[in-house]
Amino acid sequence: MTADALSAAQAAFRDALIAHRLLIPMGVDGLYGRSGVFEDVIERFNLLVSRHGGNDGAEVMRFPPAINRRDFEDSGYLKSFPQLAGTIHSFMGNDRDHQALIETLLKKEDWTAGQKATQVVMTPAACYPLYPVLAARGKLPADGALVDVYSYCFRHEPSIDPARMQLFRQREYVRIGTADQVMAFRQLWVDRGTAIMSALGVPLEVDVANDPFFGRAGKMLAANQRDQTLKFELLIPITSREKPTACLSFNYHQDHFGHVWDIRTQDGGTAHTACVGFGVERIALALFKHHGFDVKAWPQAVRDQLWT
Amino acid sequence: MTADALSAAQAAFRDALIAHRLLIPMGVDGLYGRSGVFEDVIERFNLLVSRHGGNDGAEVMRFPPAINRRDFEDSGYLKSFPQLAGTIHSFMGNDRDHQALIETLLKKEDWTAGQKATQVVMTPAACYPLYPVLAARGKLPADGALVDVYSYCFRHEPSIDPARMQLFRQREYVRIGTADQVMAFRQLWVDRGTAIMSALGVPLEVDVANDPFFGRAGKMLAANQRDQTLKFELLIPITSREKPTACLSFNYHQDHFGHVWDIRTQDGGTAHTACVGFGVERIALALFKHHGFDVKAWPQAVRDQLWT
Repeated sequence: MTADALSAAQAAFRDALIAHRLLIPMGVDGLYGRSGVFEDVIERFNLLVSRHGGNDGAEVMRFPPAINRRDFEDSGYLKSFPQLAGTIHSFMGNDRDHQALIETLLKKEDWTAGQKATQVVMTPAACYPLYPVLAARGKLPADGALVDVYSYCFRHEPSIDPARMQLFRQREYVRIGTADQVMAFRQLWVDRGTAIMSALGVPLEVDVANDPFFGRAGKMLAANQRDQTLKFELLIPITSREKPTACLSFNYHQDHFGHVWDIRTQDGGTAHTACVGFGVERIALALFKHHGFDVKAWPQAVRDQLWT
Repeated sequence: MTADALSAAQAAFRDALIAHRLLIPMGVDGLYGRSGVFEDVIERFNLLVSRHGGNDGAEVMRFPPAINRRDFEDSGYLKSFPQLAGTIHSFMGNDRDHQALIETLLKKEDWTAGQKATQVVMTPAACYPLYPVLAARGKLPADGALVDVYSYCFRHEPSIDPARMQLFRQREYVRIGTADQVMAFRQLWVDRGTAIMSALGVPLEVDVANDPFFGRAGKMLAANQRDQTLKFELLIPITSREKPTACLSFNYHQDHFGHVWDIRTQDGGTAHTACVGFGVERIALALFKHHGFDVKAWPQAVRDQLWT
């Protein structure tokens, strides 16, 4: 499939989603409203995930779509993915500055240069706000910690591919503890994730993967990540069989976050962390792609999984 | 109540919410994680609202927490509330720029000046993304339109008051049509909103109000808004009886949005709009304040409203 053919397939799928009033265009690539039907699929999928993970004793935390800028700076995200981050800026001037801003706006010139960074930054992945919260609680219990998070995340990568939104939601379970504890958790979720998605009747494969590290140095980071099999993805073809879309990811962060925020296990070691992330919009898109735009006409076995 | 006493009451309530693990501090005033219990109250309240408004035939739309910057510029928000708006900025440089960014960060200097404005801006109120969508559909049907929206909104006003968050959610019903249609809708929801909140056992009053317009010119805009009774609020005492908190608002925008986006009624006139907004975090806080931190110990009549 050529790049042109891929773009055409993505544009055609996006247009069909809009024509069926599942997505609502907002005039910016990667920014969409969702219809009630689209949201219902996502809500039902979240409940399905909860049925699989809900008996493990995870603590539920729901964070807003932005985090503390200082925590964001500490996280190391800017080193790896500066191009994706979104900082929130605001007007902090007086009456005269306001007058100048309005005049600039009326002249259709750039009024945004005067905006100043606030203390908050868009959440880059649903688990980021969690680590400083856990660190503040002190040493982990002997069996570590398990947390259920879900939030809107922002990544600045405008695209016509409806599966690459600038604002999307991640549902995650995050495990914090010893290396053994978090690796066992990750394997459990590779198996569970595969079972959940298989039962939803979509073609899939699980493969080793890497994050989109920035720049020249990023190439080496990506290669290291693959060599150490730190990231697996569950891929589903949506607009291309050759380039299927990562809908779930299974990540082992080693002691990166434990080290940054000094999270300690019961025996005093630096905590390791792992997470499973569900890209819920991508999963909904995969379901619409493979089962059609009318949820009432989806295979009964699939409907039974979601609308029980 | 002095300003100091009010601040102390706000800080005490915030600290109690954190101690009961209902809110999770994130190191920035007005930025909190929510516990599973807190979220459940909000979800149940949303369902309660849907039971009252769900038979009116509203179209459900769910927008992400940011909107198109061009729509935001057109909306007039910057003229009235520049101090509250949040623009999203991103790094758009090359390898060398990235190196400079990281060095600035390591020196603990301000690295944010190099961030450039993206095409998206934080959603200032849940109904803002809706108007351009309706305009794109062409002339309204004879009975106008009714839409159910719900999203995270951002306002840059850091505060220790837990009822003044920087990121919070608004549930709204929005009516678009003739002046008569939208005024009848607003009165319907003043009555319904009062009934809903009365049944939840909280003290309340409905009063005329104004938005926090910026600067010297803003004082006159606020006075005009009150004179024309364009905005009513349903107020509930949370940390102060003298300064109760606006938990619902009932807004008549006249033809402001209809004019900006050229939304037309069936007979060709410029559409008028009105909305009812539920500040769901504030409503949850009011419930915790008046019924206690343990939802299982809330009065049975209140529980029956939410957990039916």
